[in-house]
Amino acid sequence: MHTPQFAPDSCQVLAFDIFGTVVDWHGSIVREMQALYPQVDGDAFALAWRAGYKPAMQRVMSGELGWTLIDDLNRMILDNLLPDFGLTHLNEAELQHLNRVWHRLDAWPDSVAGLTRLKRKYTITTLSNGNIGLLTNMAKRAGLPWDCVLSAEVFHAYKPDPATYLGVAKVFNLAPEQVMLVAAHHEDLAGARACGLRTAYIERPLEFGANQPKDVSPQAGNDLHATNLNGLADQLGC
Amino acid sequence: MHTPQFAPDSCQVLAFDIFGTVVDWHGSIVREMQALYPQVDGDAFALAWRAGYKPAMQRVMSGELGWTLIDDLNRMILDNLLPDFGLTHLNEAELQHLNRVWHRLDAWPDSVAGLTRLKRKYTITTLSNGNIGLLTNMAKRAGLPWDCVLSAEVFHAYKPDPATYLGVAKVFNLAPEQVMLVAAHHEDLAGARACGLRTAYIERPLEFGANQPKDVSPQAGNDLHATNLNGLADQLGC
Repeated sequence: MHTPQFAPDSCQVLAFDIFGTVVDWHGSIVREMQALYPQVDGDAFALAWRAGYKPAMQRVMSGELGWTLIDDLNRMILDNLLPDFGLTHLNEAELQHLNRVWHRLDAWPDSVAGLTRLKRKYTITTLSNGNIGLLTNMAKRAGLPWDCVLSAEVFHAYKPDPATYLGVAKVFNLAPEQVMLVAAHHEDLAGARACGLRTAYIERPLEFGANQPKDVSPQAGNDLHATNLNGLADQLGC
Repeated sequence: MHTPQFAPDSCQVLAFDIFGTVVDWHGSIVREMQALYPQVDGDAFALAWRAGYKPAMQRVMSGELGWTLIDDLNRMILDNLLPDFGLTHLNEAELQHLNRVWHRLDAWPDSVAGLTRLKRKYTITTLSNGNIGLLTNMAKRAGLPWDCVLSAEVFHAYKPDPATYLGVAKVFNLAPEQVMLVAAHHEDLAGARACGLRTAYIERPLEFGANQPKDVSPQAGNDLHATNLNGLADQLGC
């Protein structure tokens, strides 16, 4: 999938999408629900929570809501889910704890090793709609060795807003083509590509759980296509 | 110097001043000048460059200049210094390289070991007026193991503006007293203390070089006073 004109040395910074690309939000939430609230269908609950995410961000980007951190959007979505999943009895401390499951997501099995290899040659940063505190807590727990924690919170815009992709290049005083976005989502990669960034697609066929396998076949336009972060490190010579 | 009421477990995040506290800007610039431009008095040059820093930030905070990254302020100051130090012959590439010496500052000898110990128990973040790219490049070169890179660039305010200190607490969803500022400068610590943060003073007697030793005697008001970051780790039980 290596396009002929792509040279690994032409990039200096790799910016990573997080939810689904580096960490397994679906599996982590299913496991948390099994441990805390085994009466709930964890698969359906995780999917419903995640499904509220894009519409909530859209309410912010349209101006209906003021600037809001993902922690707060996640809580708004969670509050709306409680009746459907028989969780209206949870008290405030329990809700706060459950909402912070997004800080406790487990990495995919290859993520720490792959990032550690990639970090030897590149500056590796998050570029997530998750807030800085969430990303930092997650990294500390999961051992993700970021050089930098960039977030929608820094740019006051969510991906796929161009301000986020161009913001990474600006932070590092680089041209857009010296930055590569690494993500498991074509919409995110398309947004980055439109801004001139390089793109690497990562297959995460189980992102939505075993019941909803994703089509991870290659799509045109990405510079690289890898099965996981170790595969990306192989392709980049790390 | 441990005030009786301070309990190490009451803090979760340590936020570090960088220039002078974690890295040796004076010695690093002197060494760089010796290597590149040995005809220049590196000690005087480093001190003059640094002396332009606060007035430049003041021009931004007063509104005379729009929001400006430290990289750009450093360059404005550098451009003004060139005639005095016989450096008007430098070309643009040489000036850009010299300006980025602030990305290549060496850590004090205790910094990496001390931060590595402190990181086991606390979330460790930068809180510097330096921009994110500068801080990230510096950390990667010097091996500073930050969990997070916070900067005036995130808050669009320079220390000692309260928005910076309170911004750290807000990023991590903590009360101000759960955050400790670690710095070698009393003005910075006073700003943090006024916002309710805990404070640790670090002695850096040679911050301004051997010709201008600093008075590092304890001052009232700080929760902790340590000779260096290993000493801070000792006091915090890390």
